[in-house]
Amino acid sequence: MNIAVIGSGLIGQAWAIVFARGGHAVRMWDGDPAAVGKALTLIAGQVADLQQAGLIDAPEALLGRIQGCQTLEEAMAGAAYVQENLPEKLEIKKEIFARMDKIAPPGTVLASSTSSIPASAFTAELPGRFRCLIAHPVNPPYLVPVVEICGAPWTDPHVVQEAWDVMESVGQKPVKILRELEGFILNRLQGALLREAFKLVEQGYVDAEGLDVTVREGLGLRWSFMGPFETIDLNAPDGLADYAHRFGAMYTSIAKEQTSTEPWSEALIAKLEAQRRRVLPTDQLLARRAWRDRRLMGLAAHKKAADNEAK
Amino acid sequence: MNIAVIGSGLIGQAWAIVFARGGHAVRMWDGDPAAVGKALTLIAGQVADLQQAGLIDAPEALLGRIQGCQTLEEAMAGAAYVQENLPEKLEIKKEIFARMDKIAPPGTVLASSTSSIPASAFTAELPGRFRCLIAHPVNPPYLVPVVEICGAPWTDPHVVQEAWDVMESVGQKPVKILRELEGFILNRLQGALLREAFKLVEQGYVDAEGLDVTVREGLGLRWSFMGPFETIDLNAPDGLADYAHRFGAMYTSIAKEQTSTEPWSEALIAKLEAQRRRVLPTDQLLARRAWRDRRLMGLAAHKKAADNEAK
Repeated sequence: MNIAVIGSGLIGQAWAIVFARGGHAVRMWDGDPAAVGKALTLIAGQVADLQQAGLIDAPEALLGRIQGCQTLEEAMAGAAYVQENLPEKLEIKKEIFARMDKIAPPGTVLASSTSSIPASAFTAELPGRFRCLIAHPVNPPYLVPVVEICGAPWTDPHVVQEAWDVMESVGQKPVKILRELEGFILNRLQGALLREAFKLVEQGYVDAEGLDVTVREGLGLRWSFMGPFETIDLNAPDGLADYAHRFGAMYTSIAKEQTSTEPWSEALIAKLEAQRRRVLPTDQLLARRAWRDRRLMGLAAHKKAADNEAK
Repeated sequence: MNIAVIGSGLIGQAWAIVFARGGHAVRMWDGDPAAVGKALTLIAGQVADLQQAGLIDAPEALLGRIQGCQTLEEAMAGAAYVQENLPEKLEIKKEIFARMDKIAPPGTVLASSTSSIPASAFTAELPGRFRCLIAHPVNPPYLVPVVEICGAPWTDPHVVQEAWDVMESVGQKPVKILRELEGFILNRLQGALLREAFKLVEQGYVDAEGLDVTVREGLGLRWSFMGPFETIDLNAPDGLADYAHRFGAMYTSIAKEQTSTEPWSEALIAKLEAQRRRVLPTDQLLARRAWRDRRLMGLAAHKKAADNEAK
């Protein structure tokens, strides 16, 4: 399949790797003509890291499937699927989708990586709005496989399924979101947990490091291979309903203390920032991000092996 | 160090393994005289599984450090630390702590595994209430290392530190909870996320399996080795405060839709239960729990190796 990647920043680069790793021919374009060349260099570096981590086999073949293009038309020529990754501004999304909708034949799927703008906000006026939707990755998608697929009310369900199939064909884990909503699923879940986390530190029950330990040495372990529903389904003798009946009253009682909607105060943000800087000084942020990516690579390799063993 | 494990059910058995694995001499007692013998057999089976997963080296030596006892006095003789694991009933906790407080010299730490009853509820009247506290594990603690340490208002801070040190000495990851609260930290965070998860399915945005994929292929990956604060600290160029300023408005906006305090309805519970049973039929629950424990063992071994590499 030919796939166009529009925008060659961090997300565009990562998508190019994902699609090329999955065997597709990728054409990449950027509004800034110099950007694509730089992106190809950065992609080569990422691919070398992935090879070293044992996550890809044939780096040259993969890189050979990624081609830089000088015009949007050239990038989209023959593409069955387009993944757009321009900056998170409504006007930019409106403009690029209008251009793409003019260029692409009606059978081409037009997907945006946006994490914050619903498809209905920038596709309403387009003749081809039925083939437009969101395919929201988590950065970097070659290490974090989930992709949130969310159409506008007018998106054709077959197009949603096509996008889902493309993602599955390249080893991603697509999730269908059935109605538009702010933050999609992932960030709404993250927001719910962060709100309680911020409040527990604000009210002096625990410090930031203690809370992180609680998750990374406890709660996060099961969630990294099961998710919250399977976790509770296996945590009561007779499954999820049994769990809900055993612990529902406790969670309802706790929920009554989890209703705050105040913005995080500057004092609280400063307190948490100070606690983080004691654990990790500012000048070590960059190195720690590289560590995080190595850990994600190691975890991806571990999960792949564990999944294969279970088969 | 001599450690007494009081109660020989699943949690008591797991604690015996943790303490013996850490090199301590463990004496175990149960109100039901037949239970301890059965527990020792079950422990031997668990230890064999751990050896096969490469998580322990010398199973015979470990098992040799665990001894069953016929009386509470015998189990507590010479113990510097006591871990209580009787059923989650206030009256039972009151009775056993009164007995233990009479038997143990003042220097002995008395800890309860309770997940739901604060220490102040069953230690208020005890002469030795200053050395009583909660050390709440996640099951099974030999695979999930976090331990929530939470004293009553009258617990001596040195005793809290002693319990923390015992847990660290055996490779657990203790977290100090600085004031009593319902659900401690872990279940409050789980509750916040579950509430949003239940609601997203109830309102038809996603199904149970899609939500689980979002966590196990996305959100849960970073949380399994970083925790939520480190995750956001590394997710904005200048750290946590930078992240809070970039995304605080979005999370506040979402929070306004996350204030429900209704109990989970029977209809919703039935809907989720049905969705889970389509993914995992009832007769496969047991086998899936064994799979979960193998995955936890594999993840523990992977994290241990990754931590060592980083040193």
